[in-house]
Amino acid sequence: MKLFNYLFAPRPKSAAIAKERLKIVLAHERASRDAPDFLPRLQKDLLTVVGRYVQINEEMIHVNLGKSGDTSLLEINIEIGGAKPNEGRLAPAS
Amino acid sequence: MKLFNYLFAPRPKSAAIAKERLKIVLAHERASRDAPDFLPRLQKDLLTVVGRYVQINEEMIHVNLGKSGDTSLLEINIEIGGAKPNEGRLAPAS
Repeated sequence: MKLFNYLFAPRPKSAAIAKERLKIVLAHERASRDAPDFLPRLQKDLLTVVGRYVQINEEMIHVNLGKSGDTSLLEINIEIGGAKPNEGRLAPAS
Repeated sequence: MKLFNYLFAPRPKSAAIAKERLKIVLAHERASRDAPDFLPRLQKDLLTVVGRYVQINEEMIHVNLGKSGDTSLLEINIEIGGAKPNEGRLAPAS
């Protein structure tokens, strides 16, 4: 997958970083430029879902919205604290 | 955003296609190779959330899971029927 090469900027080699990173990219190719763009509204729901699985550092969320021709792009970069012990929809209430 | 160039394969020019396409890419850079990988479990929840906003053609969902070093990649390609009229969490029950 050539996408691998375009996803993360390299970490500084000298830094001892334990944080994990998550990048979410949504690209919506519309049938026409007039078709509605739902990506901005989707953003909050995506973060809610991801937050079920990993600890999200709320101060380390960076969002880019872009458009090129008929394609809209939503890019979310999150610093996370790793997977939660009981992750996901089936986790018991704590 | 240079990502634009790597997201969609070009459509055949001769075809009159009204379908829209959505690509979802999640890349998880873990602190170590031993850190748990939550992307496979996240997949179903993501589709549920996206399905609130757009009509998903269930037969046109293609999923790739990959791994390169400490980075896991989940790539979902969906053919969609466009945004729903009352999209999202605040839509009234129909």
